[in-house]
Amino acid sequence: MSGSVRPSSSDRPSGPFARVPLSAWPHHDGSELHVGELFPALRDRVPVRLRIPRALSAALGPLEGVWLRSLRDFEPHYDAAAATAGDAAASSWDWYEADLLLVNPVQRYRWLVRAGGRAYWLNAAGFWDRDVGDAHDFRLTAHDGRQTPDWAHRAVMYQVFPDRFARSEQADRHPVPEWAIACDWDTTEVIGQGPQTPYQFFGGDLPGITERLDHLVGLGATVLYLTPLFPARSNHRYDASSFCGIDPLLGGDEALVELVRAAHARGLRVIGDLTTNHSGAAHEWFRAARADPRSPEADFYYFSADHSTYEAWLGVDSLPKLNWRSEGLRRRFVLDDDAMVARWLQPPFDLDGWRIDVGNMTGRLGRDDLNHEVAALLRDRVGEVKPDALLLAESTSDAAADFQGDTWQGAMTYTNFTRPLWHWLADAPEALAGREPWFFGVPPGATDQTPAETFLVTHLDFVSGFPWTVRRCNLNALDTHDTARAAEILLPGGQSVGVLLQYTMPGIPMVFMGDEFGLTGWNGEASRTPMPWRELECPEGERRRIREDLRGLYGALGSLRAGSPALLDGGIRWLHAEGDVLVFIREHAEQSALVVAARAAFQIELPPAAVGTAARGVWEHALDVGPGVWALRDGDAVVLEGAGGPCGAVWLLPGVRRPHAA
Amino acid sequence: MSGSVRPSSSDRPSGPFARVPLSAWPHHDGSELHVGELFPALRDRVPVRLRIPRALSAALGPLEGVWLRSLRDFEPHYDAAAATAGDAAASSWDWYEADLLLVNPVQRYRWLVRAGGRAYWLNAAGFWDRDVGDAHDFRLTAHDGRQTPDWAHRAVMYQVFPDRFARSEQADRHPVPEWAIACDWDTTEVIGQGPQTPYQFFGGDLPGITERLDHLVGLGATVLYLTPLFPARSNHRYDASSFCGIDPLLGGDEALVELVRAAHARGLRVIGDLTTNHSGAAHEWFRAARADPRSPEADFYYFSADHSTYEAWLGVDSLPKLNWRSEGLRRRFVLDDDAMVARWLQPPFDLDGWRIDVGNMTGRLGRDDLNHEVAALLRDRVGEVKPDALLLAESTSDAAADFQGDTWQGAMTYTNFTRPLWHWLADAPEALAGREPWFFGVPPGATDQTPAETFLVTHLDFVSGFPWTVRRCNLNALDTHDTARAAEILLPGGQSVGVLLQYTMPGIPMVFMGDEFGLTGWNGEASRTPMPWRELECPEGERRRIREDLRGLYGALGSLRAGSPALLDGGIRWLHAEGDVLVFIREHAEQSALVVAARAAFQIELPPAAVGTAARGVWEHALDVGPGVWALRDGDAVVLEGAGGPCGAVWLLPGVRRPHAA
Repeated sequence: MSGSVRPSSSDRPSGPFARVPLSAWPHHDGSELHVGELFPALRDRVPVRLRIPRALSAALGPLEGVWLRSLRDFEPHYDAAAATAGDAAASSWDWYEADLLLVNPVQRYRWLVRAGGRAYWLNAAGFWDRDVGDAHDFRLTAHDGRQTPDWAHRAVMYQVFPDRFARSEQADRHPVPEWAIACDWDTTEVIGQGPQTPYQFFGGDLPGITERLDHLVGLGATVLYLTPLFPARSNHRYDASSFCGIDPLLGGDEALVELVRAAHARGLRVIGDLTTNHSGAAHEWFRAARADPRSPEADFYYFSADHSTYEAWLGVDSLPKLNWRSEGLRRRFVLDDDAMVARWLQPPFDLDGWRIDVGNMTGRLGRDDLNHEVAALLRDRVGEVKPDALLLAESTSDAAADFQGDTWQGAMTYTNFTRPLWHWLADAPEALAGREPWFFGVPPGATDQTPAETFLVTHLDFVSGFPWTVRRCNLNALDTHDTARAAEILLPGGQSVGVLLQYTMPGIPMVFMGDEFGLTGWNGEASRTPMPWRELECPEGERRRIREDLRGLYGALGSLRAGSPALLDGGIRWLHAEGDVLVFIREHAEQSALVVAARAAFQIELPPAAVGTAARGVWEHALDVGPGVWALRDGDAVVLEGAGGPCGAVWLLPGVRRPHAA
Repeated sequence: MSGSVRPSSSDRPSGPFARVPLSAWPHHDGSELHVGELFPALRDRVPVRLRIPRALSAALGPLEGVWLRSLRDFEPHYDAAAATAGDAAASSWDWYEADLLLVNPVQRYRWLVRAGGRAYWLNAAGFWDRDVGDAHDFRLTAHDGRQTPDWAHRAVMYQVFPDRFARSEQADRHPVPEWAIACDWDTTEVIGQGPQTPYQFFGGDLPGITERLDHLVGLGATVLYLTPLFPARSNHRYDASSFCGIDPLLGGDEALVELVRAAHARGLRVIGDLTTNHSGAAHEWFRAARADPRSPEADFYYFSADHSTYEAWLGVDSLPKLNWRSEGLRRRFVLDDDAMVARWLQPPFDLDGWRIDVGNMTGRLGRDDLNHEVAALLRDRVGEVKPDALLLAESTSDAAADFQGDTWQGAMTYTNFTRPLWHWLADAPEALAGREPWFFGVPPGATDQTPAETFLVTHLDFVSGFPWTVRRCNLNALDTHDTARAAEILLPGGQSVGVLLQYTMPGIPMVFMGDEFGLTGWNGEASRTPMPWRELECPEGERRRIREDLRGLYGALGSLRAGSPALLDGGIRWLHAEGDVLVFIREHAEQSALVVAARAAFQIELPPAAVGTAARGVWEHALDVGPGVWALRDGDAVVLEGAGGPCGAVWLLPGVRRPHAA
């Protein structure tokens, strides 16, 4: 008897197809190996390719056909894919190719594989043995010239919260503002929650950053991302009182000019932080709007009919919400010659792009949903002013629907990388009991520890909706100025494995200042610790804030990444995700990179065909994290073994040749 | 050693949470038991309720908290849900309640449950033990007065393809048109594919339908849905040459007036079929447009710059695509006093609504996506002309994104019901070998047989994106004029089980004419068999088209449904989905209905608490399908057993009382 009170059968086909091991899945991703043109135009025909491992037939039965399914004006369309000849005999893969016609600006597609008398689908979330909805289709976007700059996906980003990074001598010259509580850089504790939290003032400034740029270079950073610089009435400055000048407390306009100049001289780009969802209540626009309902600025915000109340971000009065129905706002913010979106990207300031705050709520209120329109407006203007600039946006939760390649060029989001990573590398429940890391958009409760299977399926769920060109510009953050510190949440030694994944998975590794010293902080405010420069001069035993000096690891990963075509431009194919161990391979015509990450000692075996080659002598052991990982190869299997604790490694392997490739 | 070449572990958390049996899942759906107001307005606070079975703690550990998560302007928001007191001791459920504020017109929400130190999510696709994207959130739509008529979700629909339903004596008076190939009603075979297919003319007409309305009433039908009636140059009439009059071959305008009058006299409503995506190439608008680029109709279509070519549905020249950027088209089609959308809903014609053809492609072409705007325009106009009318639309594939409750009121779609049902009840592969049922939007290949688990997870994947008020107006079709016949695809005896599910799952059961006789047909053209009225007079052995007379079953299910608050207005909670067996319960304050469907002999056991009551004597055995199903109840378990073959049953049970309910 089959009673339903027992757990359902293990082959319940409830998600990506679990009965076929990952290493035998057919493969496609948005990288150059598999897509003929990453930035096509509408009506282009782009060759797209599917690789089917020979091992698949062993699992499913003989291969009967492959089709490319695309949605054309929202109607499914099927093209038979052709096997491509070539050095097929030498390979463990069969390649199939079809032309994808870009009928719509965001062209969705997926693959149908028939084998052993049954149908299977491959989409961006996995390999399915049932009909599956369109949410996880692959996407290729018609860019029509609005191409993401090539430096973006190659970047390593370093995030600076200016009040806490470094304090120059000239900072002493500024009086402490009336709203602020003066704090001592090295001795005052950051208060994570309470009325003093936004007012603790440590007095970091832009000249302080300029003096320390070599620190960033040493970590392999290529982009400096600065949280807001405009004058405000808080240490975070998201409540800007003007968008027209740099806060004198930070050194003013000239200090920014000097910082950007010094950064550019070192090959570092610099991006700023803009709030398109709201301004501060002290902003000159809001003061004018509030004072007079007939002022030109009055329709920049959402006032009640009697002008007595107004809409604000999450009801916080100090952050009145901007109303993008206003043509005046669009002109002043975006379109005018000296509109803020434009002026800071131009000389003498010359920023290299923006990170948009609260991108997800921008233009959205009740019945209004102008988000796509506003994002497109910003993107067009940024591209016009500085074609080489980058436009990122914050969207902390399920972000992909707003990031389809035609507006924001990358997401600062937590659901696809940060959160599944925290869950996989979380410390034991006892260690985290009662600690709820404060984190925008995150559910109540502690960070559960989950297995590698959960990491992968969650990552794929949230990342699959991004076109590849956006996905590789999403920020892979261990933590940010809005979250607890990873070091507070992760297993001892876990941060290093997190950094390994941050630098090797598709996306821009984003390092929050201080992560390189293993700083702690139980929520997004407490994590804004002043950088412990002085402690560096102390012996290790006397260090209070520095928990672990990881500069060497960050630097090594930055170098490895910068020199690796596989890590910069390769696709990603998952080989293993079980319990303690994650394995994937980044594949490129010139090179592949095999990455292993584990949270405990392990030993696993992979079929050589899945790795592409088991030939002795071609594996280049590029990097180790933690207590060491060995690859033991013999004729029939690739055995990977980790000695213990959180550990990981990267090997460089030959590139993937495709039939007929140049 | 854990080699990845073996299948992954059975607890791979890759989909809705398989480690907890369905019958122990927390439950919420959009029905009145769980949602305080089904048609709220923006800014309303609507109480929503979650039920947690006591059995859940046994599986997951002690319950720690319940939260309602809603997306407000695309930002997650959490409200703690309160346990509601009441007759809790007597129940096997704990109830939690929170107020959902309708911040946006389509308000998305889901539930967070923390138990045993971990977080779980309940959304419309299932119960998850990992973070999950927003695609499957529950939805509650602010209707602002545009409420779906209450008769709609209570309907049983009968679909008539007019050329093939019945031929009145006056049909003989019409000459066969020049495009047509005259066919004999009882002896000519329908040709499924070939140049003659659209031209085979059997000559059914509207008076023929009027004469046979009692046949529909006998099956329990409450709505007659007619495929197109406008003059055309094919037997299907989707290539209308005018929208201003009924085809004289069908009896003309007067015949429609008479048909609707006779239907209304019997309590039957009548809906028509409109093409908003295209017209026929012979349409008066298109002829005018083609003849003169300066004609008022020229911008109703998409012509090339030199006016020599035009866009057409899937490239079929006879079906030129309508361009909804045209204000003239909007006026003539929708807004004018005598616009077709309006005039046929008004006296003397008095249709009760429309089914829109190719709803998914309407307003979509390349860069244009006016679909939502056009659908809203149609919905507003229909509601204005006849508030009690219904607006359905065809969208054969993953439809939900276009059906959010603010436009089309129900979907004619195949992915959430028809296809998973076919797959579950499919005949053996040998029997179906080589037969690919032609079906719009459907992948190449035969219909694989899949287990009940696949039915459920696929159904939930595709149905979860619809708000409840739309979901219950989706057409549950075994087959239609565009598909093969179910009888051609399903197991012997399988159709009856399919009909059982069609009438008992949420949605409008839609019967394609002739299904009640088990007609066959290997694709959507071949299935348009003329109704075998004459064969009914033959002894069973001499019947050629009639494979199985199922009129009794359809009638019995129609009666049961019409009198059952549970089947009409109850929620749906799944209790079992494994291999050969599906079990669910429709729950309502006044009554519950337990439905069992099986494709083979079976015996299963359910915990009494999951059914709501195991008290003897309260189970009312309402209906059996196939060789009989028995429920054997004793103190500790509910045992269900089916004697063999495809079989099923319905039991009526007491309603579900909720704490504090009136």
